[in-house]
Amino acid sequence: MPEEASNTPNANFEPSVITAGIVGATGYTGLELIRLSEFHPFLKIESITSREQAGKTLKELFGWNGKYAHLILEEPNPEKIAEKVQAVFLCVPSGKAQELAYSFLKRGIKVIDFSADFRFKNLSLYEKVYGIKPSYPDLSQKAIYGLSEIFEREIKEADLVANPGCYPTSILLPLIPLLKEDLIEKNYLIADSKSGVSGAGRKSEEYYSFCEISEDFKAYKIATHRHTPEIEEKLSLLKGEEVQIVFTPHLIPINRGIFSTIYVKFRSSLLTIYEYLKEFYQNKTFIEVVPLGRIPRISEVVGTNLCKIGLFEDKKRGWGIIVSVIDNLIKGASGQALQNFNLMFNLPEDIGLPKTSFFV
Amino acid sequence: MPEEASNTPNANFEPSVITAGIVGATGYTGLELIRLSEFHPFLKIESITSREQAGKTLKELFGWNGKYAHLILEEPNPEKIAEKVQAVFLCVPSGKAQELAYSFLKRGIKVIDFSADFRFKNLSLYEKVYGIKPSYPDLSQKAIYGLSEIFEREIKEADLVANPGCYPTSILLPLIPLLKEDLIEKNYLIADSKSGVSGAGRKSEEYYSFCEISEDFKAYKIATHRHTPEIEEKLSLLKGEEVQIVFTPHLIPINRGIFSTIYVKFRSSLLTIYEYLKEFYQNKTFIEVVPLGRIPRISEVVGTNLCKIGLFEDKKRGWGIIVSVIDNLIKGASGQALQNFNLMFNLPEDIGLPKTSFFV
Amino acid sequence: MPEEASNTPNANFEPSVITAGIVGATGYTGLELIRLSEFHPFLKIESITSREQAGKTLKELFGWNGKYAHLILEEPNPEKIAEKVQAVFLCVPSGKAQELAYSFLKRGIKVIDFSADFRFKNLSLYEKVYGIKPSYPDLSQKAIYGLSEIFEREIKEADLVANPGCYPTSILLPLIPLLKEDLIEKNYLIADSKSGVSGAGRKSEEYYSFCEISEDFKAYKIATHRHTPEIEEKLSLLKGEEVQIVFTPHLIPINRGIFSTIYVKFRSSLLTIYEYLKEFYQNKTFIEVVPLGRIPRISEVVGTNLCKIGLFEDKKRGWGIIVSVIDNLIKGASGQALQNFNLMFNLPEDIGLPKTSFFV
Amino acid sequence: MPEEASNTPNANFEPSVITAGIVGATGYTGLELIRLSEFHPFLKIESITSREQAGKTLKELFGWNGKYAHLILEEPNPEKIAEKVQAVFLCVPSGKAQELAYSFLKRGIKVIDFSADFRFKNLSLYEKVYGIKPSYPDLSQKAIYGLSEIFEREIKEADLVANPGCYPTSILLPLIPLLKEDLIEKNYLIADSKSGVSGAGRKSEEYYSFCEISEDFKAYKIATHRHTPEIEEKLSLLKGEEVQIVFTPHLIPINRGIFSTIYVKFRSSLLTIYEYLKEFYQNKTFIEVVPLGRIPRISEVVGTNLCKIGLFEDKKRGWGIIVSVIDNLIKGASGQALQNFNLMFNLPEDIGLPKTSFFV
Repeated sequence: MPEEASNTPNANFEPSVITAGIVGATGYTGLELIRLSEFHPFLKIESITSREQAGKTLKELFGWNGKYAHLILEEPNPEKIAEKVQAVFLCVPSGKAQELAYSFLKRGIKVIDFSADFRFKNLSLYEKVYGIKPSYPDLSQKAIYGLSEIFEREIKEADLVANPGCYPTSILLPLIPLLKEDLIEKNYLIADSKSGVSGAGRKSEEYYSFCEISEDFKAYKIATHRHTPEIEEKLSLLKGEEVQIVFTPHLIPINRGIFSTIYVKFRSSLLTIYEYLKEFYQNKTFIEVVPLGRIPRISEVVGTNLCKIGLFEDKKRGWGIIVSVIDNLIKGASGQALQNFNLMFNLPEDIGLPKTSFFV
Repeated sequence: MPEEASNTPNANFEPSVITAGIVGATGYTGLELIRLSEFHPFLKIESITSREQAGKTLKELFGWNGKYAHLILEEPNPEKIAEKVQAVFLCVPSGKAQELAYSFLKRGIKVIDFSADFRFKNLSLYEKVYGIKPSYPDLSQKAIYGLSEIFEREIKEADLVANPGCYPTSILLPLIPLLKEDLIEKNYLIADSKSGVSGAGRKSEEYYSFCEISEDFKAYKIATHRHTPEIEEKLSLLKGEEVQIVFTPHLIPINRGIFSTIYVKFRSSLLTIYEYLKEFYQNKTFIEVVPLGRIPRISEVVGTNLCKIGLFEDKKRGWGIIVSVIDNLIKGASGQALQNFNLMFNLPEDIGLPKTSFFV
Repeated sequence: MPEEASNTPNANFEPSVITAGIVGATGYTGLELIRLSEFHPFLKIESITSREQAGKTLKELFGWNGKYAHLILEEPNPEKIAEKVQAVFLCVPSGKAQELAYSFLKRGIKVIDFSADFRFKNLSLYEKVYGIKPSYPDLSQKAIYGLSEIFEREIKEADLVANPGCYPTSILLPLIPLLKEDLIEKNYLIADSKSGVSGAGRKSEEYYSFCEISEDFKAYKIATHRHTPEIEEKLSLLKGEEVQIVFTPHLIPINRGIFSTIYVKFRSSLLTIYEYLKEFYQNKTFIEVVPLGRIPRISEVVGTNLCKIGLFEDKKRGWGIIVSVIDNLIKGASGQALQNFNLMFNLPEDIGLPKTSFFV
Repeated sequence: MPEEASNTPNANFEPSVITAGIVGATGYTGLELIRLSEFHPFLKIESITSREQAGKTLKELFGWNGKYAHLILEEPNPEKIAEKVQAVFLCVPSGKAQELAYSFLKRGIKVIDFSADFRFKNLSLYEKVYGIKPSYPDLSQKAIYGLSEIFEREIKEADLVANPGCYPTSILLPLIPLLKEDLIEKNYLIADSKSGVSGAGRKSEEYYSFCEISEDFKAYKIATHRHTPEIEEKLSLLKGEEVQIVFTPHLIPINRGIFSTIYVKFRSSLLTIYEYLKEFYQNKTFIEVVPLGRIPRISEVVGTNLCKIGLFEDKKRGWGIIVSVIDNLIKGASGQALQNFNLMFNLPEDIGLPKTSFFV
């Protein structure tokens, strides 16, 4: 697990513009990627696709302004797109990415996939959880799990990156270093996570209508959410033995943000753990382990690629409490995808990615 | 136009329970009617219908608690329902109420219709605005427009009441007395109205999804909303000459409430107008003309059947400004329907209807 | 612990109106109590007080409508108030209730106290947690903890009831029966609770301003909230040995509601536990153990005195998950106070208390 | 009134970094200015001040990340600040800016003032409206009203710019061209405006607490808001005769955004007016006159320096309706300040200013 500084460009860094395409550009993660791309000096979006809206522009559809407002949405045709781009972001549902990834990769295009299709190494687990038969087992094994800070070295060499789920990102970033270093017990992990509604994507369902969400708060998929096996597989692989986690997702009536409250058993003092984690992430520009006593809040990360982590202890009762917050659309999706893009193309990790939150 | 006190029961008032049915019970107005009915000592809901959900209970569908939680939703069959009830509330879309109303009326059942089907006297206007052919022109002529405070006398005798639109209720209540009494100019009427999202009904459309509404504010159907002709017809009939109004609806990211800011030209002093309106509504328990200088707000009426009206003047610029607030689901729909029910069955006008808002 | 039916009036039930006062009537819990009192057929509010607003009415202050709008706020003078009332609700901060309770009790007035002043039996714990010296230790020992369903029998005989905290209400109701019956382990209790903002009371602090709350989600007082010892004392007393719980409160950007996600270790099968809890509360009109598989949500209890409980199991990982939802201002404060009032005056437990939620 | 293209740099454009200070940096407009400055390649913030928080950093106060997180807040001492900066932004309340502006100007520092202190040419009107005696009448006369698109030429030469109010920005941008060109009547102007809560600034008042704003909608200062005379003075000066406008502000329960619905009388066809306005603003990168039939919404401009304008007609009733939306903290405050800064320092008008909205 690489821990060296990563946000300084390599010596041989020669900025040149890299072209990319976005397949499935009209969902929330696709649009966020387009929005963020505007700030990226070395990324040029050359192709955006939408099966339903092909022929239209973002201007027409959403009154979009700015750099890519007039780009015309295409049919998602890999052959055609591959001629124009060096990399492609797949913002399509799980099950739809396998074939697309294969088509792009065989044409030499690097792929960053937002779906779960290549997140699992245990393919029978993937099949069981998602109900989808893996079509390219070799690709699944070659794919790198795009948790940027943890798999930085591998991502730099990767052609296919499986961008992590939003909840897993918020939970794995604090847990992986602590578990690996044996600073927390592996048998007592409970993640109580709360997410803004954009995590569900662009929806036309009664369940997600304003009147059903506003002034309410809900849990969903208790003990059955598909991010549980994703988290467990990564923890287990890195720990070298089976690790389990209880995970409960909830819906907050806000647009953006994930707040994970994670209950653990410390195997060392709070201070030791705090200092270890702080050092572990000291060169990681997007991870902030906040000072002891301070509680990170969602509004501090909305609009940024940051993950903020706070550590607490209920000493009397013998539990540690970890708070982890991210913007689900940025660090939890499109921002981390860009961060992976930067790594894959040997660019400074943080280029084009915001660190100052919207705050209001 | 009756102005006498109405909330004291008639001398011959003998409370006995009246049975009623609700056709289309699973939309927001239907559910609100069921919720409000629980507080009504002389109303018993005997039948609730839903084409899609027949056979289920509100408990099963919505985790509903309380009095009517276990009533089973039926098919909307007038013949069967008519055997059990004395009155029926039609919470169905415009165009669907005509046939139902006819079926119930011919069986001697009183009808309170929430749709626009019987709101218009000018049937060619109705047809033009709604694109629906009126099937029972005679019923349309006999139907009473259920603006309770204004048509109280007629409602008391009515078998068929056309419950007003939510926006029209908020706009007509202040304007009708002032126009009739020539206290405002009839040629300068502009209503800028803002509504909570429940006004659109239970929706599974992207446009009404949480992420598309929250942190946004929208106008819609500028200069083309169907409530404009409804308002104009009522103002014109009561004034005895054609009256026009500019009406702009907006969507506020809240669940309940309508706030109408109405621009008028005063023909008398603010004080005279204030005192006239106060006196006009002095015996109307649900209308409050608030003290001069005070601005009514939506939170003061949410959960109640109240309409609060504030009067202001920009003397230097020559305009009067009227603020009118209601709960769109109560005074703007189900509460006013119950008020009309009370009138039709010779009950005290305010029985079972809340006056204290939720305030938080 | 009484488990018999409680919502049927005693045989000797003779409804007669009971007079009451509210000390500290202009905060959110005081106002909610006034609002709810309107629906109560046997409760008459004769006195409301406010040190800052004495001389004014709720009409003047809040544009309040309905039954008690014109009652004049008094100075909180027990001598004067005691002449008019049979019971008094103390809606004052912790530390302010001790003296008031004593003054009313010695004049024969029954007291329901919303503060923490009489919640603890362990007075040194109370003193440590709240930094307040208990002035009337005897009263503290005599006071009954007003968790209505659990201490029903004692409340019926009580002169002084300590109304529970909002979070403790949501957490204790599911945990007490299961702990007592040894159906869950006493050493593994974690409550991750989320509350609407009205729980903090009427506030003029930047922290609670709209822009700082909306589109955010925060945890606060991690491992240090004063409700932890309150919960632990009650669990320990009822269990007969020390019980500990980890408790983390969070703030949801909504007005009302508490959602507690509680992690426990089952000592029996989910089905057994479900059936036990269902039976335990079968005669308790305000507690609903929802069918297995169904997740209660805040919107189902807003506006009601209900507590809804859902039970879940993550079998593979060995944890039970309990969801408990209440309206913090009703079952978590003013509603439960009224429920206790009903018990203390031998009225049907549920009289005047709503069960149908606002739902939208 | 200049109408030529403005977002192309002058021929003699030589980008070099300009240093600036922000007086009053911890309010919402100050923080937004700091946030936006990070994207500006030629602006370097060298000094930020706060009387109350001097000595602290934004990191300590707000958990701020990014470029200026560790800058230490200073006392607002013009003498010291003037040594480090070429320009200063005054984010202080009206009445506090006069002395500061004078101190900076006499030291050769260019000033952009967010307060109303220098917005008026009619100083007795300013004194009457704000209750503040103008201390530097000469400066008031020399100050340029910073409505960037309208006073571009003057701003380019200015040392002191009075940044416009947020509501006036949204109202003046559509009205000025139409009034000047005689396309609308000058005697029929009504602006019904709705603003997000951040427009009130960082507040610790009950009125602005979450529970008092959320699920509510309010009007305030009807016919008495201080932005009315500001709007009227600008319209009158540009029109060359007295112009009056009725203006009603409202509070939407959202953080950011202003939505103005403006009622006017067209003196020409909708199409002519649309084409005129479109042409007028064709080279103004931040003004979009949206296609006929399309209604701009707040979410399309949140996070941007855009003003979007839609034109509508209620032909039958003889009124035009103009919709104008901005982000109150950007085009309505800090963004327009930066735009003016760009003009004052001969930079491309749009440099560093976002055009793509947050959209969710």
